[in-house]
Amino acid sequence: MGAAVSTTDFERIFHPRNLAIVGVSKEGLGFGAGICNSLRAIGYGGEIYLVNPKGGTWNGQTLYPRVEDIPGRFDLAIIAVAAPAVPAALEACRMKGAAGASIVSSGFKELGTAEGIALEQEILAIARRGIRVIGPNCFGIYCPRSGLTMLPGPDLSRQSGPIGFSSQSGGMAVDFANLGKSMGLQFSKMVSFGNGADLRETELLQYFGEDPETRVVGMYIEGVRDGEAFFQALRATAARKPVIVNKGGLSDAGARAVQSHTASMGGSGRIWPAILRQANAVQVRSMAEMADACQAFTLLPGRVYRNLTVLGGGGALGVAAADAAETCGLSIPPFDDALAGRIDALLPKPGSSPGNPVDVANPFVAPRTLKEIMRLAASDPRIDLQIFNSLIHHYKNMARITGRPVREVTPYLELADDIQAVVAETGKPIVVILFNPKSGMDHLDVVEMFADARRAFVQRGIPVFNTLSEGLRAIGHLNAYYERKRS
Amino acid sequence: MGAAVSTTDFERIFHPRNLAIVGVSKEGLGFGAGICNSLRAIGYGGEIYLVNPKGGTWNGQTLYPRVEDIPGRFDLAIIAVAAPAVPAALEACRMKGAAGASIVSSGFKELGTAEGIALEQEILAIARRGIRVIGPNCFGIYCPRSGLTMLPGPDLSRQSGPIGFSSQSGGMAVDFANLGKSMGLQFSKMVSFGNGADLRETELLQYFGEDPETRVVGMYIEGVRDGEAFFQALRATAARKPVIVNKGGLSDAGARAVQSHTASMGGSGRIWPAILRQANAVQVRSMAEMADACQAFTLLPGRVYRNLTVLGGGGALGVAAADAAETCGLSIPPFDDALAGRIDALLPKPGSSPGNPVDVANPFVAPRTLKEIMRLAASDPRIDLQIFNSLIHHYKNMARITGRPVREVTPYLELADDIQAVVAETGKPIVVILFNPKSGMDHLDVVEMFADARRAFVQRGIPVFNTLSEGLRAIGHLNAYYERKRS
Repeated sequence: MGAAVSTTDFERIFHPRNLAIVGVSKEGLGFGAGICNSLRAIGYGGEIYLVNPKGGTWNGQTLYPRVEDIPGRFDLAIIAVAAPAVPAALEACRMKGAAGASIVSSGFKELGTAEGIALEQEILAIARRGIRVIGPNCFGIYCPRSGLTMLPGPDLSRQSGPIGFSSQSGGMAVDFANLGKSMGLQFSKMVSFGNGADLRETELLQYFGEDPETRVVGMYIEGVRDGEAFFQALRATAARKPVIVNKGGLSDAGARAVQSHTASMGGSGRIWPAILRQANAVQVRSMAEMADACQAFTLLPGRVYRNLTVLGGGGALGVAAADAAETCGLSIPPFDDALAGRIDALLPKPGSSPGNPVDVANPFVAPRTLKEIMRLAASDPRIDLQIFNSLIHHYKNMARITGRPVREVTPYLELADDIQAVVAETGKPIVVILFNPKSGMDHLDVVEMFADARRAFVQRGIPVFNTLSEGLRAIGHLNAYYERKRS
Repeated sequence: MGAAVSTTDFERIFHPRNLAIVGVSKEGLGFGAGICNSLRAIGYGGEIYLVNPKGGTWNGQTLYPRVEDIPGRFDLAIIAVAAPAVPAALEACRMKGAAGASIVSSGFKELGTAEGIALEQEILAIARRGIRVIGPNCFGIYCPRSGLTMLPGPDLSRQSGPIGFSSQSGGMAVDFANLGKSMGLQFSKMVSFGNGADLRETELLQYFGEDPETRVVGMYIEGVRDGEAFFQALRATAARKPVIVNKGGLSDAGARAVQSHTASMGGSGRIWPAILRQANAVQVRSMAEMADACQAFTLLPGRVYRNLTVLGGGGALGVAAADAAETCGLSIPPFDDALAGRIDALLPKPGSSPGNPVDVANPFVAPRTLKEIMRLAASDPRIDLQIFNSLIHHYKNMARITGRPVREVTPYLELADDIQAVVAETGKPIVVILFNPKSGMDHLDVVEMFADARRAFVQRGIPVFNTLSEGLRAIGHLNAYYERKRS
């Protein structure tokens, strides 16, 4: 279990003044050299001490033969030596006064061998003598504020933000960090804890629950060590802030895969959803769903939404919106005749439809007209959220006709400003759906424009989802959380 | 409804030697000019006669004041004049001997007004005198072989292929055509029939059922005119080839949106799934799911798949695969010790896992090694399909370290060749999952590489899905269809 830990330890672990990397091969291959390169690339500012038993230099940096030879103090060690050499390295780091160590090496309990299990026991014994261990068999810690990055994260964002994330899987963690960056999600800290010999799900959950930087907590878990302690921590944390959980290994086959991955007991697919619901955690089934939920929880005011407007071009999008909304317990109430009439006066004719959903029929309706329609739609007192179904991919045709680049002819910046203004004026959030059917090799200009448009919306606090059903699913998670919270 | 139609008519409609566009404004705005530009851009090879009551020229082309003034014959007319002028234009086209007319104008039955309904009745009356009508309120026809393109499709593919698609929604149709192009799907013909005054779901389904070019039929429908006739046609067609149906408006709110979109009766969300299952049609809930299903049905041999291998880097991907597979009724059976041992001998150590799923641990394992692993995995006689979970986004780090472009350092072409060779040798299909968490503005090089990798795989007959769960869902559709078909 590990002893209770003072916040000071976590402060030194997440914001280490100096680092040691134990196990940097002279050839520059392997995890040790990789994480060193990543730390340089992302711009970690402290000293990085490198250890290699052969000594010498690598890339102009001294390689200290032993941890004991490191001349200065370091708060965190990253240990990347072969498994049998890990305990000695860890003990040396402890003796040097490090607060924690990320052990990225694998070859422990996950092998299922007596030797692997014994090595992991040794690690835990050393940890209990006074150093916190992340891993083994993990990708380490990513902390944008301190410039600490996980394996293999040389290009993660340095923008700190409200999402704290812990993961039993290193691959999931680094993929989620990258996906989050693509989507504009910002993290406080991310921890890949792998086998979790010492520090793992429950303590990290408690830490994120207390951490003032973290407003939303995400977790990928395969199994928990102490079910009751985890449940209590989950319930306590979820009472303070949203906790979004992706539990892998819910199926029989999945549970078997879990066993050889992180040596955790998977637990049953019938029990987990009930436990998570009882603790008011939000259950998601993929990292993409996790990312969407994180976006909704961080960018939308935390409350229950009931009645939506849907504004977009194309009647079928309105039909799909209505279907998806009903599935998520949301309603798209028709406007009364007076309001529909005022909106109708702004719409191109024929082919448009002023009811709710509003079909603008033409993808080239000017942002200022869309703005007016959204202002009018928000005046319906029942409405608490608006969905804007963007059709900006059609501007590729405009680019073709005018001979100008698609980023120039598409008014997405104006649209982002206008939507931000309507949200500020009406106090009702607007969610943007950016579905791009033009993503092949001959539409890379459209892909680029979409990436920039997404960034423009998110920077203005406007959530963006790839598809309508994904957006509504995320809003459904928000509703479920705040509904249960107030009841 | 409508009279029985000889295949000759369809031949002239889908492969018109010459076209008339009725309603091309001199200002070059509007649907008429738009479709003319699109036809030129895509390279339609026949004559295009343009009609405008004011006469004169546009872009150097003669504008004939009346349809009657057109000097030559044309097989298909595209009518884009205001609704009240449509009947006269249609009648003139009929008198000129056109086989069909796409009426892209709106302002008919979908308005719900007495005038709109009466105009649509007039259209039907003219159609029954001997011209087939597509629309009104539609985007027309896309036929890659003849170079006929729908609104606003100037950049659709000219590659003909096995998918026939009809849609009550123009927006859905053109988005699907674009999405299909991005994914490498190829179409025989696509018809957006809008209000479907004359030609609509049932007859088009029958046509696609008979059409030798069409191996898979897709449909977006909001409502059907004659439920019994549609069901009979659906059952008969699905007995011959897969029919994939996206039925919009299954919810109450969706049914209301359908009413103002295409004036169809939506029908109940409880009845439709049962009807579709009974006819052995494949029901999907979005165009993305439709596209995935079309890919599975066109690229995978048509049979039931049961036992998969999953090969990828990262244990959590294996866990997710196992969970998703079980949901779709698929199994990932563990290899026996002898086979696991042979695979283990090829894997990097430590961190890898040779069981099924196979975790290669390192994203930079060479394609030739992956090829050997896939060959070995296929030797398990239970296995009938393999899933390869690509991690090629990690090559961005390789690009960073080597200073070379990511497209150069990523061996996706070699991988595509190797996978193609394994499929050919083993007779067991391999499905590739290409999930890219690096898609923001600073990773456009990765996005481009992924687009090219997707093209490379699909060109070799290897299906590609964005996520594991989407891929397995598509395989689940394939299984359900062939299971019911043989029972």
